[in-house]
Amino acid sequence: MTIQPYRSPSTGCGIRAVLFDTFGTVVDWRTGVARQAAAFAATRGQHLDAEAFADDWRALYQPAMEAIRSGSREFATLDTLHRENLDQVLRHHGFDPDRLDARTLEELNTSWHRLPPWPDSLEGLSAIRRSYIVGPLSNGNTSLLLDMARNAGLPWDVIIGSDMTRTYKPLPKAYLRTAEFLDLKPGAVMLVAAHNNDLHAARDAGLATAFIARPTEYGPGQVADLTPESDWDLSASSITELAGGLGAAEAGCAPSRRTSHHNANAHGKAANAIVNHGLPTSLYPAAASGNAAAPTNGQPSGSAGPSSAGT
Amino acid sequence: MTIQPYRSPSTGCGIRAVLFDTFGTVVDWRTGVARQAAAFAATRGQHLDAEAFADDWRALYQPAMEAIRSGSREFATLDTLHRENLDQVLRHHGFDPDRLDARTLEELNTSWHRLPPWPDSLEGLSAIRRSYIVGPLSNGNTSLLLDMARNAGLPWDVIIGSDMTRTYKPLPKAYLRTAEFLDLKPGAVMLVAAHNNDLHAARDAGLATAFIARPTEYGPGQVADLTPESDWDLSASSITELAGGLGAAEAGCAPSRRTSHHNANAHGKAANAIVNHGLPTSLYPAAASGNAAAPTNGQPSGSAGPSSAGT
Repeated sequence: MTIQPYRSPSTGCGIRAVLFDTFGTVVDWRTGVARQAAAFAATRGQHLDAEAFADDWRALYQPAMEAIRSGSREFATLDTLHRENLDQVLRHHGFDPDRLDARTLEELNTSWHRLPPWPDSLEGLSAIRRSYIVGPLSNGNTSLLLDMARNAGLPWDVIIGSDMTRTYKPLPKAYLRTAEFLDLKPGAVMLVAAHNNDLHAARDAGLATAFIARPTEYGPGQVADLTPESDWDLSASSITELAGGLGAAEAGCAPSRRTSHHNANAHGKAANAIVNHGLPTSLYPAAASGNAAAPTNGQPSGSAGPSSAGT
Repeated sequence: MTIQPYRSPSTGCGIRAVLFDTFGTVVDWRTGVARQAAAFAATRGQHLDAEAFADDWRALYQPAMEAIRSGSREFATLDTLHRENLDQVLRHHGFDPDRLDARTLEELNTSWHRLPPWPDSLEGLSAIRRSYIVGPLSNGNTSLLLDMARNAGLPWDVIIGSDMTRTYKPLPKAYLRTAEFLDLKPGAVMLVAAHNNDLHAARDAGLATAFIARPTEYGPGQVADLTPESDWDLSASSITELAGGLGAAEAGCAPSRRTSHHNANAHGKAANAIVNHGLPTSLYPAAASGNAAAPTNGQPSGSAGPSSAGT
């Protein structure tokens, strides 16, 4: 259970908490919202392009938060913003929100509370949780994230909603206040996200970073965020793979046993898709000479950087 | 998994979240702090009355928070207050805090993060969690409660620390802001506590209430809080018994199957120690006539009150 924590090359800190962007990174909002919108339309016998409905609703997300980030509007929860945007999206798709009862609108609005996890999310989060604090670092409000977790079975240790930090990513306060609630230095907190802009902001705020590729988040025609656009501490194609990169895939491994540079993930496959941009191989003098500061079992190549001898 | 939620006689609401006072109600702070203080003294070869040390430290808890509640001091976390009080307690017991290194003091101060659960806590919380949101409603700060949960294995869905509400129980805001983060009416939230004064304040704030007897929280000579001092919605001698009272002890039972007034708890024993003060038997017309509004399987006698037909 006790492993040497992954040491972030970018922050120089041992990681204590691994926090996740949720919409797109942990859960598949497009499929989830489209499925619930389609069911809503079907009960009314109306045609709906459900994926377009989901895309259109999501497209209003950033402008709505921007009013709050810029200070032109007081903080309002994401549930509130979704509800306001819902009226607009319904009209655009041929439904009159004024003719729908409050319960139906509420049910549709809480589609965002009932989103399916990506296939690797539960296994990956459970693996990481054995060695690190896990939680969301999302623009969702606490009750939304709590419902999402209970519905999808996400094994969070803690939920710090945007209504607790009272701000929205990518403002620095969103990351810093979260670290503060955890009583951790920003550098001991890692943000995992499928969105490069989120990671840029997290790194600027002093957090460690990991990219997860979600190439179908926006559907088959996705063009953005297909690859890591910077040298994030870790990059992986799934959360299970990330668990390998964090040395968390093998529960209960002896902390002092040495291993080769190639780490095995929870499936026993070599986690060779993990890219650790932060540390070129030449920076591993310990591993090369095979002395006591070499990476320990369960840790990825490079997770213990030059400063590992001091831990 | 879906059961009719317990309906609080005092609030008239179906309960959605069951929140727990932690120190004394879920974890045994006296034994936990004494054990760690004894270990601290032993490594220094010094004698220490470890139970008295724990009692003395705990005794400074309310006065420290009172300065914040009264507004004479800005909000400070419980970790901070514990740390300030620790110096005083160390001196009283013959240790000079100025001669101890920062790491030792921090280790001792975080004794409160490493407290053993009462024997029934994990099973009871897990049972209740199947049907209700579970979390702490404690004066502890988030990082303290998070460490406590990870160390003891407490299966919280959500942790709303006092640093998120920025106030201390028993001020009404402590209860009301917690319900607000959950997006629930206060009456849909139940506070479970081993302390009658906490329950009085929660009820005054509009919450549902349940008493758990912890007759050795303060050691063998405990004189206060041995019994429920008011007609709380539920009273029980353990959290597993409370799970029975909430209808949460039997997972997966059919929601529409009727049962007798005597509910079985998770151990298969009749949960006859559960006292439901809120609803006299004469208020169960449905159960008496055996119609469809009778209490469903897994629900305690009386959990569905007169208004149950409208749910």
